[in-house]
Amino acid sequence: MVRMPRVAVVLSGDELLDGRVVDANGTYVAARLAALGARVEHILTVADQADRLEAALRFTLDSSPELVIVAGGLGTTHDDLTAASLAQVLGVELEEDAVALAMLRDALQGIAQRRRLAIDELLPQARRQALLPAGSEPLAPAGVAPGMAARHGVTRIFAFPGVPSEFRTMWSPVEKALVAEGFFAPVLERVVRTYGAGEAAVAAILDAARRDLLDVGITATGGEVTVKIRYDSEPASRMEADDLVAALEREAPVFSSDGRTVDDIVADELTARRETLAVAESCTGGGLGYRITERPGSSAYFVGGVISYADDLKRDVLGVSADTLAQHGAVSADVATAMAESVAKLGRATYGLSITGVAGPGGGTPEKPVGLVFVGCRGPRGTVVTQGRFPGDRVAVRQHSITLALHLLREALTVAAGDG
Amino acid sequence: MVRMPRVAVVLSGDELLDGRVVDANGTYVAARLAALGARVEHILTVADQADRLEAALRFTLDSSPELVIVAGGLGTTHDDLTAASLAQVLGVELEEDAVALAMLRDALQGIAQRRRLAIDELLPQARRQALLPAGSEPLAPAGVAPGMAARHGVTRIFAFPGVPSEFRTMWSPVEKALVAEGFFAPVLERVVRTYGAGEAAVAAILDAARRDLLDVGITATGGEVTVKIRYDSEPASRMEADDLVAALEREAPVFSSDGRTVDDIVADELTARRETLAVAESCTGGGLGYRITERPGSSAYFVGGVISYADDLKRDVLGVSADTLAQHGAVSADVATAMAESVAKLGRATYGLSITGVAGPGGGTPEKPVGLVFVGCRGPRGTVVTQGRFPGDRVAVRQHSITLALHLLREALTVAAGDG
Repeated sequence: MVRMPRVAVVLSGDELLDGRVVDANGTYVAARLAALGARVEHILTVADQADRLEAALRFTLDSSPELVIVAGGLGTTHDDLTAASLAQVLGVELEEDAVALAMLRDALQGIAQRRRLAIDELLPQARRQALLPAGSEPLAPAGVAPGMAARHGVTRIFAFPGVPSEFRTMWSPVEKALVAEGFFAPVLERVVRTYGAGEAAVAAILDAARRDLLDVGITATGGEVTVKIRYDSEPASRMEADDLVAALEREAPVFSSDGRTVDDIVADELTARRETLAVAESCTGGGLGYRITERPGSSAYFVGGVISYADDLKRDVLGVSADTLAQHGAVSADVATAMAESVAKLGRATYGLSITGVAGPGGGTPEKPVGLVFVGCRGPRGTVVTQGRFPGDRVAVRQHSITLALHLLREALTVAAGDG
Repeated sequence: MVRMPRVAVVLSGDELLDGRVVDANGTYVAARLAALGARVEHILTVADQADRLEAALRFTLDSSPELVIVAGGLGTTHDDLTAASLAQVLGVELEEDAVALAMLRDALQGIAQRRRLAIDELLPQARRQALLPAGSEPLAPAGVAPGMAARHGVTRIFAFPGVPSEFRTMWSPVEKALVAEGFFAPVLERVVRTYGAGEAAVAAILDAARRDLLDVGITATGGEVTVKIRYDSEPASRMEADDLVAALEREAPVFSSDGRTVDDIVADELTARRETLAVAESCTGGGLGYRITERPGSSAYFVGGVISYADDLKRDVLGVSADTLAQHGAVSADVATAMAESVAKLGRATYGLSITGVAGPGGGTPEKPVGLVFVGCRGPRGTVVTQGRFPGDRVAVRQHSITLALHLLREALTVAAGDG
């Protein structure tokens, strides 16, 4: 059985609650902890008010997690309340810590030099950052404010400043120390990705195959359903994980069980065969190209393409015939085919990938409703076209369309690989 | 003083706690609520375990907020626990709701038709989504799962599915209903947007001018610094807000004080003048077109363009001369000019907007370092080119480049408007 330490995260800051700033620390540390094999039970983002922060810390300690991480509220302003609230909840006094004061002096030294001030001009205002709950230890600062390490029963508590770069710099040695003392058990992971099955269908396979030993998570995004299996290094656990992967490969449309995403597979295949890709996009307006070029080094295989948003561009730049457009409409299998074939030729690329559809909210008709999308792929073995009918708003339809196009290309690339 | 209803948000889902998915719903609804003049006191993200979810709901109701929003955990799988946990915490039974069942049947009808199944094949598995805590009301689904509305003392509780597009679609009528019944106090808001100033410089203007009555927030993204001022409808408050806006307009590079974003201004100007736009993108790979076409109705002015990622496409499709490419390099003012002029011609558009740069992490040289970007805009009054040198990683450089291009177009459009 995998021993997964239970962790809770508390983020303090009004700016995280009023739409000004999107949290970076909680997302970052949760991903780190998941990779280390810990189970994050909650992330509690709380306003800069003493009563709310104390209530949040009490609630968090109530469930006796093995690790609590606090980010934010360490600083010099009146709404920096973490040290005082923590002391209150632990039932101890706030005391000036000699080591923390020395760390603070060190950090202020650099600032004093840059601003040509004496350190004594800076220290009085900054000094409250050396106040720690009695019995806790300071953590060396990345900026000015030291962090703090405390204990409460079985719970280890670490508090950090909320500035993301300071948080990451100061978290790193804490993580290393916890790993070194064996706080986290070694955890193995398998990721299985499917495309084209519903979440419920994949969940049913898991329900049938799953035993108690494995930690299994399932996520659905853009038509893909992803299963993440975590297990320890015991031979029995490995065998169980293999069995579950095999069951999924047998019963679900699995396209990856080695961790790679559809983007990874497309990039790997094109790179390995020294083949190239051009895109022709209508309703996605450039989003397919933008996603492909998120990857550093994509210039090795991606040549570019045409955003043929207006029909004029489909005709003038891509050479889609006016007849085809008039007869079938811009959102049609025929136009998707012509776009894919033409852009491959224009970009002198091995593959041409096209998208044309009705992203909404307007523009739908009974024959061509919002969410109807045609995707075409021209390759060495000819051209294939497929259609999707996606639910959701404009954002969702466009994202689904891009993912569908990448899967069509992946199929063309991997079928060709299998045959060759 | 502004009366701000107290709100708490609970997000349920393991995928939000293990790094698989970055929360979208909490961020979205917190921003909506802030705009409506509510104070979000906490966002609590909790694992899909009944005991943890119940503890989270109890903790949330303990502080007697006026509004609780729950996202996630409504569905058909074993880890969809919101209805049961809510019933437990409210001390009521879970009951099948006739209205919810009818909503569910409606939603399944469409799926059954598409998959050519009888609805009775789908209903048994889906039926648990019609179970609601006794005394609560169903909310019409955007996908399949209905939401629910409940009360607990002074607290209004609304629960939604976690799929972001469903959450947003279902939140919208709830928000409208709350606004209509006067749940939110009327809060006035001014948003002032600047481009090209540092956050510290704008903060200094605020510090000098700010009084206690105003709630003022500042955010920096992609080279823009945005100030949001909230105030009540008293004449004195209005005057203070006007004074602060005037100070910003005097001392900072303000491009909008009527709430509009740069995207809004560009769309409004092009629409009003019945002018059109084409884009030519290199390092952004289609991201500029993707951003412009996020807006429904953008086909009125956006014709499309060329993703000239490889130099071959710059030459073959855009007609940038091989000499210019060889002499100045692809990342140069000359190539940005040629791309903008050529794509305007190719797309028969009033404006041509181009981006070419080094997004990194590779490809930088001492003369053309990572982060160097040239942006060109061809319009009725000629062509302008500007250059940016952006910090950060590939994602940041590409986002900054797109924003810079939109500002260059905005300037071309508004200068022309001022002169005309």
